[in-house]
Amino acid sequence: MIIVPEREIADLMTRAAAFDAVEKVFAAMAADDAYNFPVVREAIGHEDALYGFKGGFDRAGKVLGLKAGGYWPHNLEKRGEINHQSTVFLFDPDTGKAKAMIGGNLLTALRTAAASSVSIKHLAREDAKVMGMIGAGHQATFQLRAALEQRSFEKVIGWNYHPDMLPNIAKIAEEAGLPFEAVDLPGMAEADVIISITSAFAPSLMADHVSAGTHIACMGTDTKGKQEVEAALLAKATVFTDEVAQSVSIGEAQHAVAEGLIAESDVHQLGAVINGTHPGRVSADDITLFDGTGVGLQDLAVAASVVDLAIEKGIAIEVDF
Amino acid sequence: MIIVPEREIADLMTRAAAFDAVEKVFAAMAADDAYNFPVVREAIGHEDALYGFKGGFDRAGKVLGLKAGGYWPHNLEKRGEINHQSTVFLFDPDTGKAKAMIGGNLLTALRTAAASSVSIKHLAREDAKVMGMIGAGHQATFQLRAALEQRSFEKVIGWNYHPDMLPNIAKIAEEAGLPFEAVDLPGMAEADVIISITSAFAPSLMADHVSAGTHIACMGTDTKGKQEVEAALLAKATVFTDEVAQSVSIGEAQHAVAEGLIAESDVHQLGAVINGTHPGRVSADDITLFDGTGVGLQDLAVAASVVDLAIEKGIAIEVDF
Repeated sequence: MIIVPEREIADLMTRAAAFDAVEKVFAAMAADDAYNFPVVREAIGHEDALYGFKGGFDRAGKVLGLKAGGYWPHNLEKRGEINHQSTVFLFDPDTGKAKAMIGGNLLTALRTAAASSVSIKHLAREDAKVMGMIGAGHQATFQLRAALEQRSFEKVIGWNYHPDMLPNIAKIAEEAGLPFEAVDLPGMAEADVIISITSAFAPSLMADHVSAGTHIACMGTDTKGKQEVEAALLAKATVFTDEVAQSVSIGEAQHAVAEGLIAESDVHQLGAVINGTHPGRVSADDITLFDGTGVGLQDLAVAASVVDLAIEKGIAIEVDF
Repeated sequence: MIIVPEREIADLMTRAAAFDAVEKVFAAMAADDAYNFPVVREAIGHEDALYGFKGGFDRAGKVLGLKAGGYWPHNLEKRGEINHQSTVFLFDPDTGKAKAMIGGNLLTALRTAAASSVSIKHLAREDAKVMGMIGAGHQATFQLRAALEQRSFEKVIGWNYHPDMLPNIAKIAEEAGLPFEAVDLPGMAEADVIISITSAFAPSLMADHVSAGTHIACMGTDTKGKQEVEAALLAKATVFTDEVAQSVSIGEAQHAVAEGLIAESDVHQLGAVINGTHPGRVSADDITLFDGTGVGLQDLAVAASVVDLAIEKGIAIEVDF
């Protein structure tokens, strides 16, 4: 039994390793070699916490297990601990025995950022120059850092409901040697790639804020009722997702499907583009939209990758379990 | 983070501690202080394995977590490992952080045996003398050993589909200083308490095999389609269970409810008897029946108990996670 504590993850896991793990598992999902289990998510009636399990099995990668944990909204104020707490447990698919336990907090941020990056690699125009950010919280910094590695961007523009948070993402642009500019929402028309990463319950980005040829990654909507972009934008776009069932029920596509603007069959797996069974972007004027809902298999994939790295570097704690 | 490996459980956990833990959590469930999460159970398409998660939260005992694992039918023949493999993970309900990992194989046997024992304590006649067993596999030995501690039994009788397995339970009777007698199914009329613990898909014990005043614990049915006793027996009995929703869907009561012989409202929580909010057995002639379906909270309760014992005895492995 291998243990990789949370404190080791930052030194072990690279954005490149997270990207590879997530790209591979999206491909395996689209090839029916990997699937996610039903998600358990419970308001436990204590500390206002949401707790649950996201499990799955990747037959191709032989990765089986779950991420357990959730959201404890009073952790920070009460205890100086982060509010999102999660742990990944991997099992040996040949025997059912517990195989590894891995701190899941930083991994969750990395796998989410990797998902939008994988969508940019496979769906954005090769000549994309302007990167647009909607949202400027902690998670937005991970998203932007990973995104900037995918194309030769020349500028970052950003909008946030609370403009005083924009320096968070301006700093990432600066680290990458790129100018940053705060814009209003119509100003997003300049962007070639847009990532929205908010926890909003009403759309910010409207269909007419987006130019032809743009790729948008909607990364914030993971619950019924949340919404980041106008439903009409999905009708104008070719829509991709990690998992169709989640996309149309708790993801960004829920609204466009509910309003009859698109059908479930209009939502495609990003993995199919990776595998070459869906053409993805067909013309330079297409709007492509990735609805990143977040699946357990992403967590398992990056956790399995970090276990390999920890063993390689001699950092893994071994317990005779 | 505390780790208690499987190999330590046998020396740490007592039947008495398992009994107390299960009795308390059944009481908490009936008082709405504890609840089980939806069960995830997946045929993963590898090694013919069934894998899943049973989670829950006991607000009264402050126990949060899950049992993960399942059934790997080829473990024994292929690898000399047992086929049921499970691990319990406990979380701190105040913070969401992982708190303990405990080997769950022996605990599962002990908590299942404890459940029938708790039912015998609260529902069997005080003057019960003859203990009847239907089933003689590995789990039956745990059931019988625990049951014999609940009343002053004078004899054990047993039936099994494969009679050559009866020595398994005869040996337990002998250890307790009691005579053992193999009987046919009508011979069960002599029993004051009957435990059935098989994995049958058709009833063995019929309504007319059971005398007035008997308590029956049906411990084998945990899946749609399984059945140990004639549905008409449930109509003659006062029916109790660990969790009503499971009892009527995947437990022994599924058939009687489906056939309209009893209603869901005729199935009572054993915890209500423990709490004194249901009278339980009213007369010496009542037939009482406990439908033990097995819930995650039982696993969490015995695991939490074993963590306390491991810390107390200095056996717990501590990992800085």
